[in-house]
Amino acid sequence: MEKSALQKERAAYQPKLPKALNGAVKVKEGAPTQSVDNQEEIKNLFPNTYGMPVVEFVESDEPNNKRINVGVILSGGQAPGGHNVITGLFDQIKKLNPENRLYGFILGPNGLVEHDYMELTKEIVDDYRNTGGFDMIGSGRTKLEEEEQFEKGLEILRELDIKALVIIGGDDSNTNACVLAEYYAAKNCGVQVIGCPKTIDGDLKNEQIETSFGFDTATKTYSELIGNIERDCNSARKYWHFIKVMGRSASHIALECALQCQPNVCIISEEVEKNDMTLNQIVDNLCQVIAFRASQGNHFGTVIVPEGLIEFIPAIGRLIQELNDLLAAHGAEYKDLDADAQREYIIAHLSKENAATFETLPADVARQLSLDRDPHGNVQVSLIETEKLLSDMCAAKLEKWKAEGKFVGNFAAQHHFFGYEGRCAAPSNFDADYCYALGTSAAQLIANGKTGYMAIVKNTTRPAEEWVAGGVPITMMMNMERRNGKMKPVIRKALVDLDGNPFKTFVGCRDRWAKETCYVYPGPIQYWGPSEVCDQPTKTLALEHVK
Amino acid sequence: MEKSALQKERAAYQPKLPKALNGAVKVKEGAPTQSVDNQEEIKNLFPNTYGMPVVEFVESDEPNNKRINVGVILSGGQAPGGHNVITGLFDQIKKLNPENRLYGFILGPNGLVEHDYMELTKEIVDDYRNTGGFDMIGSGRTKLEEEEQFEKGLEILRELDIKALVIIGGDDSNTNACVLAEYYAAKNCGVQVIGCPKTIDGDLKNEQIETSFGFDTATKTYSELIGNIERDCNSARKYWHFIKVMGRSASHIALECALQCQPNVCIISEEVEKNDMTLNQIVDNLCQVIAFRASQGNHFGTVIVPEGLIEFIPAIGRLIQELNDLLAAHGAEYKDLDADAQREYIIAHLSKENAATFETLPADVARQLSLDRDPHGNVQVSLIETEKLLSDMCAAKLEKWKAEGKFVGNFAAQHHFFGYEGRCAAPSNFDADYCYALGTSAAQLIANGKTGYMAIVKNTTRPAEEWVAGGVPITMMMNMERRNGKMKPVIRKALVDLDGNPFKTFVGCRDRWAKETCYVYPGPIQYWGPSEVCDQPTKTLALEHVK
Repeated sequence: MEKSALQKERAAYQPKLPKALNGAVKVKEGAPTQSVDNQEEIKNLFPNTYGMPVVEFVESDEPNNKRINVGVILSGGQAPGGHNVITGLFDQIKKLNPENRLYGFILGPNGLVEHDYMELTKEIVDDYRNTGGFDMIGSGRTKLEEEEQFEKGLEILRELDIKALVIIGGDDSNTNACVLAEYYAAKNCGVQVIGCPKTIDGDLKNEQIETSFGFDTATKTYSELIGNIERDCNSARKYWHFIKVMGRSASHIALECALQCQPNVCIISEEVEKNDMTLNQIVDNLCQVIAFRASQGNHFGTVIVPEGLIEFIPAIGRLIQELNDLLAAHGAEYKDLDADAQREYIIAHLSKENAATFETLPADVARQLSLDRDPHGNVQVSLIETEKLLSDMCAAKLEKWKAEGKFVGNFAAQHHFFGYEGRCAAPSNFDADYCYALGTSAAQLIANGKTGYMAIVKNTTRPAEEWVAGGVPITMMMNMERRNGKMKPVIRKALVDLDGNPFKTFVGCRDRWAKETCYVYPGPIQYWGPSEVCDQPTKTLALEHVK
Repeated sequence: MEKSALQKERAAYQPKLPKALNGAVKVKEGAPTQSVDNQEEIKNLFPNTYGMPVVEFVESDEPNNKRINVGVILSGGQAPGGHNVITGLFDQIKKLNPENRLYGFILGPNGLVEHDYMELTKEIVDDYRNTGGFDMIGSGRTKLEEEEQFEKGLEILRELDIKALVIIGGDDSNTNACVLAEYYAAKNCGVQVIGCPKTIDGDLKNEQIETSFGFDTATKTYSELIGNIERDCNSARKYWHFIKVMGRSASHIALECALQCQPNVCIISEEVEKNDMTLNQIVDNLCQVIAFRASQGNHFGTVIVPEGLIEFIPAIGRLIQELNDLLAAHGAEYKDLDADAQREYIIAHLSKENAATFETLPADVARQLSLDRDPHGNVQVSLIETEKLLSDMCAAKLEKWKAEGKFVGNFAAQHHFFGYEGRCAAPSNFDADYCYALGTSAAQLIANGKTGYMAIVKNTTRPAEEWVAGGVPITMMMNMERRNGKMKPVIRKALVDLDGNPFKTFVGCRDRWAKETCYVYPGPIQYWGPSEVCDQPTKTLALEHVK
């Protein structure tokens, strides 16, 4: 396998560990815990894994030589650092006992169910140290939810003498890890299940989890590109760049990139929802900024748009809801109509409020909402190119304003969408260290007999040796939420906190950023060189830690 | 102005210079030169600047204290390192004589004509050392071609006592720099004009110019992203990523990214043209690779597409030519027809061959060609999203093959276009050094009384201290070409040489890259750390230097 110069040199990097994780550890247990809400329901659903204490690893003189085989699964979308969780896990279980074996299940949870696996030897693991991607064993989106899956999994676990399973995933995957832990505990299968917090979206965090891995590297990669575009914008002085960034459910990525790059505008979905803003109001706000800058002779700017925006606009959410119901009920009589007739049909059948929203949408977006549906019959919101939708609507409004004398100048737009560009970047020093520590913690949770825990590392704005590693019972982070019509126990998703320090900091600056040109150019992630450049956490994390 | 940690640390970087440029220099002159073709015509057009020798700077003991004010212009699209040309120029003219002044003309050549300028003081220049972008003085696309412009320019040059002008630009801008040099020389204005080779596209190179600045950084930035996408592709194993990269006239960027990242397919426009390939043949080749990989269970891949592809497909070129003529002649009777009637009209009026090509195009592309035209009435080829066009056509063909049993599996595509992401990246060590050396050379050409020269630096695959700096008469690189119907003297553009080592190396590997998965992940540009990682030239340059 041919490798780039960076791959070769980076392979030699030895991730930094929290002081306590360098040698043998013992467990310091806290008080019993409760779930964040719906305590009775969660307790009833998880009788064997509820109420356990948060644990912290502290240095110990007593070596633990636990003999145990471990399985590992990567679940869901890629995030930088996943391989380092596995290498941390591998190194630690081999340190416990050289006879311990690590098995990787192929292409996600499905590998467990279908008995598709490989043993991860030193040779394989060494090839992936500090690399991006999930290609060591692949990932997948199969959800572990059914008893039949758990039993199929148990067969292969028994065959390979695997007594502990580490599931690396987002909020849903960790919820399912806990369900699996509870199932195996209830049936006395002797299989521990440990989760690890992964997602570039940054929406798996709470009192116990400071950040999910991958967020640091992905946002730094996007910020590099946004900074480059800002510099182009500021040099050519003739385009408005509309930049969409990944993040369907939360706007953490958009917010972090804004704090890094100081664009002229950044839209935060959670704020749009809270203020019940319409698409038209969002466009109006954008046009105000564009017109003001034009009045100063600045016919350029940069706008960051979160991927999930459309679904957060309450009026559009209500429209989509009704459209889904309407087209499901009347699909047959509707589908043979021609385009114009379909439009009329929809407007005639929608409630007055939703029909009005529908009529404000540009023709091609309305068409997308009324035509393209996924296999479940739902409108495919993700197909809407929000960045183009916004700039088209701005262009139309500015044209009107121009006629009214409220806008002087030209408006020309360029569009970008960054997602795949950052999900598999080589992990930053932060993510390389953080993930290696998470993997090491997971191994220690296993060695100490824990199940239904997620590995955690705290104090992460300090140097790595001061980090504090341990585990948190997954039930502690759960509440009951409606999913597909049923109430389910789930880990509460962390949206952008509108009362939190990162958002408030942004709000304190954004008027100045809109009017002036305050671009900051973060540049590419650096692995060597001054610590100021190489080892900084995200702005989000740093601001959250300011008390 | 707020700055990122990288900006702050990188400001302190002192670019490395060729040994000879560290102190005083003298000029070593070669033999008289000739233009690459059409020697008589070029000589007649440039009687004062034709035939001059190539010059090289060598160390000298005699200091030169030349007292001279200099103007500088950034022309055309941004390229990483432009600011370092200016800082190199600034440092060197101040070293010659602290009273020398440097003036920057604002927003490109137009600043000279419109007398829009600023003095570049140490304070200003220091703020831009080793930064990307052209925002220090801005750039623009005004062409300096008319006597009236030259005279207007002369007014401000005289007012500011500027005796030398440095024009930083691509092939056209350097051609115009030479026309200006000749004009001022013919009229004995006492103004020298010096060019500098800039363009991320890499198509300004020849026997004398090893590479244009910006190509190194831009291709490394795109390669970082392409590598990240390849890793995602290889982890998720479910998408074909079609990645378009900038480069309207030449495919150097696509080729360099392919050599860096080893994708499954990279299309080279120059090869398409030479082999008179049709769009359908290109799609067929792609589908062969997709179907082969699918037969191996690999339903994923990466394809690099050069921005200019469409215009290089001979059949499409002929179609566009005829369409432009047809719609110009019959625009009036055509424009009020509805879409279907327009299509019929076009097919009826085109020659048989071009009508056949038109009919093979997907509906929306045909529509784009027949509808959207620029202010000059020309078809807007650049609006065609080639990456989507190709994947749409592949999807349609694979659907057919599936029905015929020639393709088994799924084909799903993602699309990317990288251009603005790399034009203003902070320069790599190579571009930072190379540009600083070019600026220093430009100052020394001025100090030695040269005009109509381009600053050059050779031997660039060796460490910077071994680089050789000098100047080449611009006329030497010229020939006569038809532009807008007239024969004009121009610098010959360097397309990808199909007999050259970079392309042949690619050809030697591409079958293996198509069938196997040989992705290489270059990672982000590094400024500190191992020299292997930080200081490598492009693969293109390295391969061109292998004899």
